[in-house]
Amino acid sequence: MSELHWKQSITKIEPNKVMLRGYPIDELMGEKSYAECVYLALKGELPSVSEAKVINAILVSSIDHGATPPSALAAITSASTGAPINAALATGILSINKYHGGAIEGAMRTFLHIAELADDNDYELSEAVERLLSDYRVENKRVMGFGHRIHTDDPRQKRLFAMAKEAGLAGKYVEIAELVEAELHKQIGKKLPINVDGAIAALLCEMDFPPELANAFFIMSRMPGLVAHIHEEQTDHKPMRKIHPTDHDYSGPDERHL
Amino acid sequence: MSELHWKQSITKIEPNKVMLRGYPIDELMGEKSYAECVYLALKGELPSVSEAKVINAILVSSIDHGATPPSALAAITSASTGAPINAALATGILSINKYHGGAIEGAMRTFLHIAELADDNDYELSEAVERLLSDYRVENKRVMGFGHRIHTDDPRQKRLFAMAKEAGLAGKYVEIAELVEAELHKQIGKKLPINVDGAIAALLCEMDFPPELANAFFIMSRMPGLVAHIHEEQTDHKPMRKIHPTDHDYSGPDERHL
Amino acid sequence: MSELHWKQSITKIEPNKVMLRGYPIDELMGEKSYAECVYLALKGELPSVSEAKVINAILVSSIDHGATPPSALAAITSASTGAPINAALATGILSINKYHGGAIEGAMRTFLHIAELADDNDYELSEAVERLLSDYRVENKRVMGFGHRIHTDDPRQKRLFAMAKEAGLAGKYVEIAELVEAELHKQIGKKLPINVDGAIAALLCEMDFPPELANAFFIMSRMPGLVAHIHEEQTDHKPMRKIHPTDHDYSGPDERHL
Amino acid sequence: MSELHWKQSITKIEPNKVMLRGYPIDELMGEKSYAECVYLALKGELPSVSEAKVINAILVSSIDHGATPPSALAAITSASTGAPINAALATGILSINKYHGGAIEGAMRTFLHIAELADDNDYELSEAVERLLSDYRVENKRVMGFGHRIHTDDPRQKRLFAMAKEAGLAGKYVEIAELVEAELHKQIGKKLPINVDGAIAALLCEMDFPPELANAFFIMSRMPGLVAHIHEEQTDHKPMRKIHPTDHDYSGPDERHL
Repeated sequence: MSELHWKQSITKIEPNKVMLRGYPIDELMGEKSYAECVYLALKGELPSVSEAKVINAILVSSIDHGATPPSALAAITSASTGAPINAALATGILSINKYHGGAIEGAMRTFLHIAELADDNDYELSEAVERLLSDYRVENKRVMGFGHRIHTDDPRQKRLFAMAKEAGLAGKYVEIAELVEAELHKQIGKKLPINVDGAIAALLCEMDFPPELANAFFIMSRMPGLVAHIHEEQTDHKPMRKIHPTDHDYSGPDERHL
Repeated sequence: MSELHWKQSITKIEPNKVMLRGYPIDELMGEKSYAECVYLALKGELPSVSEAKVINAILVSSIDHGATPPSALAAITSASTGAPINAALATGILSINKYHGGAIEGAMRTFLHIAELADDNDYELSEAVERLLSDYRVENKRVMGFGHRIHTDDPRQKRLFAMAKEAGLAGKYVEIAELVEAELHKQIGKKLPINVDGAIAALLCEMDFPPELANAFFIMSRMPGLVAHIHEEQTDHKPMRKIHPTDHDYSGPDERHL
Repeated sequence: MSELHWKQSITKIEPNKVMLRGYPIDELMGEKSYAECVYLALKGELPSVSEAKVINAILVSSIDHGATPPSALAAITSASTGAPINAALATGILSINKYHGGAIEGAMRTFLHIAELADDNDYELSEAVERLLSDYRVENKRVMGFGHRIHTDDPRQKRLFAMAKEAGLAGKYVEIAELVEAELHKQIGKKLPINVDGAIAALLCEMDFPPELANAFFIMSRMPGLVAHIHEEQTDHKPMRKIHPTDHDYSGPDERHL
Repeated sequence: MSELHWKQSITKIEPNKVMLRGYPIDELMGEKSYAECVYLALKGELPSVSEAKVINAILVSSIDHGATPPSALAAITSASTGAPINAALATGILSINKYHGGAIEGAMRTFLHIAELADDNDYELSEAVERLLSDYRVENKRVMGFGHRIHTDDPRQKRLFAMAKEAGLAGKYVEIAELVEAELHKQIGKKLPINVDGAIAALLCEMDFPPELANAFFIMSRMPGLVAHIHEEQTDHKPMRKIHPTDHDYSGPDERHL
């Protein structure tokens, strides 16, 4: 044991044994879903059945949103130069920042702030929401997680909140998100509906994830979409083509249902 | 439509509608697992129940293997300098290459080569295995996906093959992997058991994934483990500490079972 | 011209002509140094002879500082997994953040803040320094760019300031840096000498570079050092070796002089 | 000294002393150019005056070539999402691969192969060139470093070769490059002039750099251009704008001369 000795609490390795947070990983395989193991890896314990459902839905919600977002465009730009798949993925992930994906963390911090404000001052949640949003207006600060360029009624947000309510997971933070939406309407006179980022933010708060992990959820969710775009770029397109950021159509299967 | 017009077949976006390979993503949420959606994103169709089980187990199998692998060490080295989580994750992913994670692709190419050799020459699989491994010996080429520094009897490989057999997914490529293990024993006189990379390789071949995607599966699987290490580094440790690559212990929960 | 039409002011390309900020690049080649062209690319104009000397010295100053810094360790960790050189370099660069390299930007912001405080309130520089550092103490905020774990008398800082003074480039910001050093001594009772980051910060302020570019100078400077470590790793060491963060010696040429 | 003890030959650190390949770095500062220190870091010795001139010209030659190359587009795509400058730079670097920048390494390998062929078989260089290019035609393999989409008479190539000839650095490899150009003309009946990548390749061969470092030279050269584009993106443009890959104009200073 050197003076640099340190400890980590995530995985124990022994010959012929890999234990994630104490559970042999071969026991988890086949019994637990990837989404449950995401929760286990990050929180140290397995989720409840309800939490597992919600985490899974969060991970599915943002898998892809077409070829226009910068994470997809950066990834395929790199892919078209002949990048190995890890480099193209890294490129995509490095394009997930404050203005793309970052709204989840921003919304989480706002929701947590509102809850704290209510707690500390014995305010009703609605009063805390009103006060904080008034402050934001004075400081010319934007609330993240509300409004969307394309989706006025985001089906992913509706699905997430419906699932959370059905699962008994919709508590204080879902209420706060809905109060913020209403208060924004009142203060600005314009409907800025909760978007998918705002919905994910509320649910990660309900499950007590810290806001520092918000971006990680978006990134984990985006991975299969990025892989699919990178692979299609390297399979179907010529290297070094000029990639137009909007002038592209969808050529996959028609709308279909489960 | 400009002269740069192009097509992608992954996701269609309309106002209030996001369709992954044709399926509205809000329908997938709650009905389909992340693992099933990984399959859908990459192959264009939903997996069978058996394939879904196996893909899920593959994604769980490599979530983490402690703090020693370079992907973990690079990620926490970056994290300890104050990197945002996407940069630390990119750092980890960029440390997954030929010698770390790359064995899955290497093994897939060997297995596919063997199957082709058998097909093209009407060889029995065992004959194709024997011939290719003899060639490898002459060319001083290593077979990837066999043998492990620590695990002589990798529980993850056993679990993956048991699940695949039970699910009726173990076909030609699982057979090839087992023949290679036996032939290696015969030629080298040493047991080099199929490792987790070799097992994943065989199963990805069974499900007809191209070898170019091998590394992507390893990377997707590694994400929650990397996130957990990065978060622990930034929560529990001082910035810029000297990170010893082996002198660390596990301080998490004791072994436990589902 | 589409509705996405945009402009950039850096480089004009015509058949058989590449003009950087207006200058044909083949005219710059052989006539101007890389350091002068760095200045040209970033500021839009060529530097004076004095500025050219100082920029060159800044770029040389941080080329390497051994194998212990996280940028070097992350880069060689990635290199040892078989990463291509661009991925290993990206890994190193992604490990240059707030706590490693970030002090240049921090110091620049402090120096600019002090100058502004003096200007706005008609303070002497020394008064502005005293007030700001007192505020920092109250807010428990650290001044960056002062003190060093190993170097109590950093030869790079001395050289940079000597050169700047000789070249007539040492003005307000060099004075501020020296006042901060003295004031820190007075307030803390401990000598925290200007380090190489603090010196670079003062000189970048003198040349009117914005603090957002501070990290870019450190990164450009670090490139040859990182390339050398990556290349040595892949040439002299075995893949996947365990890389000790401190237990290494220098095996290159003995001390020598120009 | 632990069992992980290792050695590196690049930089020695002592209190108040940083020695790059034996030279105190504060002695190099002000006396030696960045380009000379690049050579020192990578080769272990300082360059001759001629080599220093050529290395400097190589580093200047590829600083920027507008906003259209994928390294620039990926970097500004990431920058527009709010990436810190190191992440945007990493994104740009990760988009330098086989098809973008990679030609330097490709050309070096071809030139070295030709020289070896001539040596081993006592061929004239012209015979070795003819034989290898004939083989390439049979194998349908492209020679890299020749021909350009825009520049039929690349001024950077002309400048580099003129400088090398004047400096007495143009030897076997410059001759090989010129022979390849002539032979391509003869075999294909089309003029594919040596481009800037091919010229850099020949000169790196003359200075005995290994081909594994080719991409590193291109990356070091690209850094100031990438920094300039990233900074302009974050200063002049709105976050998350749609970035057209070709529909942009130059708005900087008019053509001017030294």
